[in-house]
Amino acid sequence: MSPENAHKAAAADHPILDLIQNRWSPRAFDANTPVLDSDVHIMLEAARWAPSSNNAQPWRYVYGRRGSAGFDRIRATLKESNVIWAENAGVLAIVAARLTFDDGRLNPHAEYDTGQSVAFLVLQGTALGLWLHQMAGFDAGKAVETLGIPEGFVPLTAVAVGHRTDHLTLPTDRLRERELAPRKRRPIPNIAAEGTWSAALNM
Amino acid sequence: MSPENAHKAAAADHPILDLIQNRWSPRAFDANTPVLDSDVHIMLEAARWAPSSNNAQPWRYVYGRRGSAGFDRIRATLKESNVIWAENAGVLAIVAARLTFDDGRLNPHAEYDTGQSVAFLVLQGTALGLWLHQMAGFDAGKAVETLGIPEGFVPLTAVAVGHRTDHLTLPTDRLRERELAPRKRRPIPNIAAEGTWSAALNM
Repeated sequence: MSPENAHKAAAADHPILDLIQNRWSPRAFDANTPVLDSDVHIMLEAARWAPSSNNAQPWRYVYGRRGSAGFDRIRATLKESNVIWAENAGVLAIVAARLTFDDGRLNPHAEYDTGQSVAFLVLQGTALGLWLHQMAGFDAGKAVETLGIPEGFVPLTAVAVGHRTDHLTLPTDRLRERELAPRKRRPIPNIAAEGTWSAALNM
Repeated sequence: MSPENAHKAAAADHPILDLIQNRWSPRAFDANTPVLDSDVHIMLEAARWAPSSNNAQPWRYVYGRRGSAGFDRIRATLKESNVIWAENAGVLAIVAARLTFDDGRLNPHAEYDTGQSVAFLVLQGTALGLWLHQMAGFDAGKAVETLGIPEGFVPLTAVAVGHRTDHLTLPTDRLRERELAPRKRRPIPNIAAEGTWSAALNM
């Protein structure tokens, strides 16, 4: 099916990759269509090949498929406002970063590089026809406890992965409205400047 | 031309996007081939559309084209071991993150989300036939000073963008060897676990 909200391609001012133009973070996941094991592995393979400072590869993923104990553990870490839609995803994951290099020194790029890996995973998932929605709204302490995340690793985000369905399946008016809202971004002059910093970057 | 080191596609265990499989971070940049203005704008357009926590879009880019004062300012922030190859790139950039939300609260995902934006930029550049190499080795304090980066923003990485050339153009044996070395990554069981944390993730 093609949900009504399939029109949310980025209003891009320059010709960018379809994958980037058409990716967005939905909430209306289809509880009846699982995510294939092979697709999970392809996404993780893409996540592996991200660049990182000193090739430290600080990214770590713990995931669970809908119906499994792992999925339920991750679901239980989510804020209630996320549970109400994310529980329909096919896969839930917690993304963590390793904070040090092998020699024990602090890795100042651990979070930045973990973001790069997740971006690769997201675009690979998009290429497979899947949809991903990252969440800051989860209880990191609870994730540490219930998933057994050891010292030296910090959970950064939760991710829902699955197939989209109609926005009308969402449980509240507000969620249904947000699902149809156009995507907005700062114009290029507000994120990039040539030669030196520009006041337009301060906002 | 097709440099000798064009064989560095990732030894991927699963079928991933060509863009991800073939991207790597070269040092042998071709000083004679500039990066088109239009390609810079397309890369920044891709960088705009990354996802971010609360749609805060914390990423900021300052860039300069080879031969410009901006390029020279960024080059002067690089570690000497990077200058010797990165000065041949067509564009140098400093990537910074805004540390707070609009309301002044700390944005705990500023670095992670900036990493996502750069990953989008890197894959878009790759799609345009360009090559990108991120560097942790630069003087962030000097970048703040010479580029006029204000309080509340922190420089995270430098990026070289350009066209590749033969590894033999690199100035040292060590750089020439590294340019031909195969790309290595942790196997999937060392970055991902199903259901709960696994000891294989600790290494």
